[in-house]
Amino acid sequence: MSSVIGKRIKLSLFGESHGEAVGCVIDGLPGGIKLDFDKISCDMARRAPGGDNASTARRENDTPHILSGVKDGITTGAPLAMLIENENQNSADYESIVSVPRPSHSDYPAYVKFGGNNDSRGGGHFSGRLTAPLTFAGAVAKQALEERGIIVGAHIKRIGSVYDTAFDMNGVSADLLKELSSKSFSVISPDSESKMRAEIESYRADENSIGGEIECAAVGLPAGIGANIFDTVEGELSKILFAIPAVKGVQFGLGFGFAGADAKAVNDEYEIKEGRVALKSNNNGGVLGGITNGAPLVLSVAVKPTPSIAAPQNSVNLKTLKNERLVISGRHDPCIVPRAVPVVEAAVAFGLLDIILTQG
Amino acid sequence: MSSVIGKRIKLSLFGESHGEAVGCVIDGLPGGIKLDFDKISCDMARRAPGGDNASTARRENDTPHILSGVKDGITTGAPLAMLIENENQNSADYESIVSVPRPSHSDYPAYVKFGGNNDSRGGGHFSGRLTAPLTFAGAVAKQALEERGIIVGAHIKRIGSVYDTAFDMNGVSADLLKELSSKSFSVISPDSESKMRAEIESYRADENSIGGEIECAAVGLPAGIGANIFDTVEGELSKILFAIPAVKGVQFGLGFGFAGADAKAVNDEYEIKEGRVALKSNNNGGVLGGITNGAPLVLSVAVKPTPSIAAPQNSVNLKTLKNERLVISGRHDPCIVPRAVPVVEAAVAFGLLDIILTQG
Amino acid sequence: MSSVIGKRIKLSLFGESHGEAVGCVIDGLPGGIKLDFDKISCDMARRAPGGDNASTARRENDTPHILSGVKDGITTGAPLAMLIENENQNSADYESIVSVPRPSHSDYPAYVKFGGNNDSRGGGHFSGRLTAPLTFAGAVAKQALEERGIIVGAHIKRIGSVYDTAFDMNGVSADLLKELSSKSFSVISPDSESKMRAEIESYRADENSIGGEIECAAVGLPAGIGANIFDTVEGELSKILFAIPAVKGVQFGLGFGFAGADAKAVNDEYEIKEGRVALKSNNNGGVLGGITNGAPLVLSVAVKPTPSIAAPQNSVNLKTLKNERLVISGRHDPCIVPRAVPVVEAAVAFGLLDIILTQG
Amino acid sequence: MSSVIGKRIKLSLFGESHGEAVGCVIDGLPGGIKLDFDKISCDMARRAPGGDNASTARRENDTPHILSGVKDGITTGAPLAMLIENENQNSADYESIVSVPRPSHSDYPAYVKFGGNNDSRGGGHFSGRLTAPLTFAGAVAKQALEERGIIVGAHIKRIGSVYDTAFDMNGVSADLLKELSSKSFSVISPDSESKMRAEIESYRADENSIGGEIECAAVGLPAGIGANIFDTVEGELSKILFAIPAVKGVQFGLGFGFAGADAKAVNDEYEIKEGRVALKSNNNGGVLGGITNGAPLVLSVAVKPTPSIAAPQNSVNLKTLKNERLVISGRHDPCIVPRAVPVVEAAVAFGLLDIILTQG
Repeated sequence: MSSVIGKRIKLSLFGESHGEAVGCVIDGLPGGIKLDFDKISCDMARRAPGGDNASTARRENDTPHILSGVKDGITTGAPLAMLIENENQNSADYESIVSVPRPSHSDYPAYVKFGGNNDSRGGGHFSGRLTAPLTFAGAVAKQALEERGIIVGAHIKRIGSVYDTAFDMNGVSADLLKELSSKSFSVISPDSESKMRAEIESYRADENSIGGEIECAAVGLPAGIGANIFDTVEGELSKILFAIPAVKGVQFGLGFGFAGADAKAVNDEYEIKEGRVALKSNNNGGVLGGITNGAPLVLSVAVKPTPSIAAPQNSVNLKTLKNERLVISGRHDPCIVPRAVPVVEAAVAFGLLDIILTQG
Repeated sequence: MSSVIGKRIKLSLFGESHGEAVGCVIDGLPGGIKLDFDKISCDMARRAPGGDNASTARRENDTPHILSGVKDGITTGAPLAMLIENENQNSADYESIVSVPRPSHSDYPAYVKFGGNNDSRGGGHFSGRLTAPLTFAGAVAKQALEERGIIVGAHIKRIGSVYDTAFDMNGVSADLLKELSSKSFSVISPDSESKMRAEIESYRADENSIGGEIECAAVGLPAGIGANIFDTVEGELSKILFAIPAVKGVQFGLGFGFAGADAKAVNDEYEIKEGRVALKSNNNGGVLGGITNGAPLVLSVAVKPTPSIAAPQNSVNLKTLKNERLVISGRHDPCIVPRAVPVVEAAVAFGLLDIILTQG
Repeated sequence: MSSVIGKRIKLSLFGESHGEAVGCVIDGLPGGIKLDFDKISCDMARRAPGGDNASTARRENDTPHILSGVKDGITTGAPLAMLIENENQNSADYESIVSVPRPSHSDYPAYVKFGGNNDSRGGGHFSGRLTAPLTFAGAVAKQALEERGIIVGAHIKRIGSVYDTAFDMNGVSADLLKELSSKSFSVISPDSESKMRAEIESYRADENSIGGEIECAAVGLPAGIGANIFDTVEGELSKILFAIPAVKGVQFGLGFGFAGADAKAVNDEYEIKEGRVALKSNNNGGVLGGITNGAPLVLSVAVKPTPSIAAPQNSVNLKTLKNERLVISGRHDPCIVPRAVPVVEAAVAFGLLDIILTQG
Repeated sequence: MSSVIGKRIKLSLFGESHGEAVGCVIDGLPGGIKLDFDKISCDMARRAPGGDNASTARRENDTPHILSGVKDGITTGAPLAMLIENENQNSADYESIVSVPRPSHSDYPAYVKFGGNNDSRGGGHFSGRLTAPLTFAGAVAKQALEERGIIVGAHIKRIGSVYDTAFDMNGVSADLLKELSSKSFSVISPDSESKMRAEIESYRADENSIGGEIECAAVGLPAGIGANIFDTVEGELSKILFAIPAVKGVQFGLGFGFAGADAKAVNDEYEIKEGRVALKSNNNGGVLGGITNGAPLVLSVAVKPTPSIAAPQNSVNLKTLKNERLVISGRHDPCIVPRAVPVVEAAVAFGLLDIILTQG
């Protein structure tokens, strides 16, 4: 296993969904960052299960407990350790999973890789619950970036057949990103939310789930951040983005839209604007040759439908090697996309901060 | 800059397109790999500019000169160093690029990042020519993988509006992959080539260029390779794939197709087949929770249209800070996609070998 | 700062001596290691301040609280997170240290590097208290090694002018190492302890402190572990050994004794013994060309006298930039060497386990 | 194997002593360093076998051939690749080594680790010849450091029973270090050279070899460079120093001298001198808590006697598993210490530059 990422700042995640706690250690974080705990709580609530928390009463659970690295609300430069206690450690209803793997989950490859030792209660360390400490680390990183004038925000670009307005890639504003990153259901168009909620409900009613796409942007990044060849902004960010369970694709700017495009239409030409070099378009999403070009960074990720659904599915018993019909009991989330928005922001923020500190 | 990648095996690229040579050092390569130099030459020719080389007479240029790490055609376990001499070192026609950046190229961010010291002749170290040593390293990795029963191959999935037959994700065969990786124009359907060539020619005639998509697969990978959280197969491979200039998106299995899909339709159920666990479908492209599940690994990458085109473009002069019309002289490649196929294979093969050696 | 080490297994330390807790996350630890908590407690007690704990009643403090990665006493392969609560968080008597650096302590360079943000209460994250989680990690590593037949143990080679019997480098036994690593005052000769205690007391009486040397060995290591050039056994172990505060030198085999030696006297010749390759001597301490040769690994480290002493010392006030006489109040340890023995064992054990898992 | 080191700048060594060439790639080197090729040649000559080269006519062999990363004598920021062709590739007299390992050489562990694939001609990649590209990389690093006001130099502290004057640890000057690093036989006292040469000759006459100690210093380092816990200056430098064949110990400041010392005698007190914080002594060799304190960095390394001697030795035949008397033919170097001085400087310079670029 490997739950450590980063070059100059290193993030080490730990915990199992049905163990005592999940948490993280952030090593190499600069000292002097004044932490806004309300913003951190807001991101934790956006990610937490159980409904739309950020906009209404804040849930008391998923409260990050800081063990070290912060003094009087300011980072000291020493490792920041944090844990979140798990309230519900009852793992009885997960016992059966060991032998009958859930389709499209990590159960089967984890079984092959770790055999009997992996703690498979609740997916163990593979659980989506590990995105809680990732979200925390990203919330801290967002504040370190904001002190440098860099704002990160994301929105639901699409759920099933319902699309939100996409970012204006060359004109996305810090204000819009700040607004999005404070919403529990992050969309740009006022009417996207109700349509998307209806879409989600229709899949829930059918004991099914639905996928989507999240678009994320960062503004305020100076040109010249990143590196060509192997330490590209694209490569570094995609590496951490693929750590989010359910993410199956990452693209920058037009991304796969480039496959049907010609250079005359999509090349990003330059012009002098108010005495400075500017881009006339931003189809490359702010990165050229792996390095930022001063335009907004724009990327999007594909999120697959939650594999755990109420409807019965075909699987096998790994011990008897016989086919078996699987019914996954418990509450199911028919669409993980809204809750994944702060996690995508977190991954991008942490990745960018590491790139800036390493290569700036 | 950072031109080193890998954990257990480390690949260090060097060279500038108009310098004396480009090359690489592969450190940590296992000893005992019997190198098939014909296959290496074939991949070098598939990538080399100047037409379809692999299937016809082999070009004598881009010949890898091995300096160390190989004895009697077999790797020794010591670092394998290789260089390719540059035949054409005339850089006169690149002098003007320093001050007027080519749209959608790395010229401008490289100028900001490296200022006057970056050797910008021919894009310097940013050049696509650096994919030559990457292709070499991948050709070596492919042979190390083949000794382990793993075959990697790729094809042009799409150029502009012309699509090749896509891989059957749950049934792609080693034979097909071997065939594709020996072709100079790698497509599955016999009639794709002529249609794609016509598409390319239409853009060349218009002083334009066109993008595309490359699909790559690996078969023979056992279940259990990779790691969850941060060292996922998806994350590791995307990091190296984004090192290929012009790649702007990476997806696994259905990838962005998941955004409009529901779990009932795309969950990969299990069944017992000939006494063993098998998947009834492979929409996840062979990876679950960051770990291989025994099904073929299938991914695709988006390739943007070559930014250098014959048509004049708008740019700026970085010294005078005035708008300037740019005409890029020289031969232009209206579609980089066919030549990028062996590079994608190389990136995937190197990445997989490193994952296997690190985490197997 | 950087409190993360390791390649295949990564150890991330956190905490401040006067904060809420210290602890660690061990990532990449193999699953299936059956933990003997008595042995872990024994090592924690050997390191803990306050007297000779291991051999007598076990102290209840410094109890490691495991948060994740262990199920039913067996490692799961997921990150093992552990914390030790700090009992005494009163930091009043450390307030003055910020402005008047203690001689030979890290106060001054830490002040320059981190300025006002470093939590300097009790040396903050620089404190020797961080060796507690390192000792824990080493205790776990020792058990993983023991399952592979490798035993690590150390003893006090010297305190001031008093020497213990040195290891027989070519004949040190697993039994001796096991015995040493269970002692609270680890010496080979029965009469060394009393002499060393007397030496220490004489320095305590003089408000002074005294240095020493610790010798560590590992038996059961097969030949062929490690790597030449940059990932040598010597280099990897010295890197982690220098993480122990007060360690100022590391040597293997004869070490600095080689400086006055000739090859005829110290070359380690080979002979066939019971049908197998054996060494006639082990002056190289079990490592040649960075790789183990099958003989016992033997190394020693120099430990400087504890810089905090009761006697007044000359220092400066960093704010007024005036000379100032410094008196460090509180309890002082006149010799850190006995307590450092389990920490040296821990560093060697963790380093060896990582080398074996990475390069084996 | 692992021949790559460094965090922000990465050095990758390649080549075998009896192959076509040895060389290196330095990745991440800052652009804009003006290279003084005379100084580089001087260091190459100091290290080269065959007598005292630097002070007299420069040898034409061991000429570094730069392939990339330098334009008009100035580094570009792209990877600097360099190779040195091997003149004598005749490996006939090394054939026998495969089966009869030389005592105290890496032959035996390399045989166990790499089996039949390791190119053992001339020690293969294990050869001391690999210190040639390391010396080159260090010569480049020294110039990058000198531009930052940091000077590195070393001298022979001891050969057998003959000692040179040791550094004044708190007062060593840049001028002395510059002088030492331009000498072919680097000693401080004028009469040390003749005495040391006589010592060496006595061992040569006896078909024997003798060890020694090298002391290295760096001045101009500001306080605050490095990191506590795992990325200490001591740990980072010792890791690279142990890459030098024959180095068996590394110590900082008093090093093993601390083992017999008390705090009152060796604590480095502070005083205000000309309005600034200064140290009254420098027994810690310029590093406290892993971080520089502004005093000169002083370290020394133990060098074992060259294991290859003319006298016959006892060994074994790895194939027949019988004892065998070994006579190593060819020219032997009775003391490697003088030639190792520029290599120690190189390792320290490269290590310091990486620390500064990573953590500065």
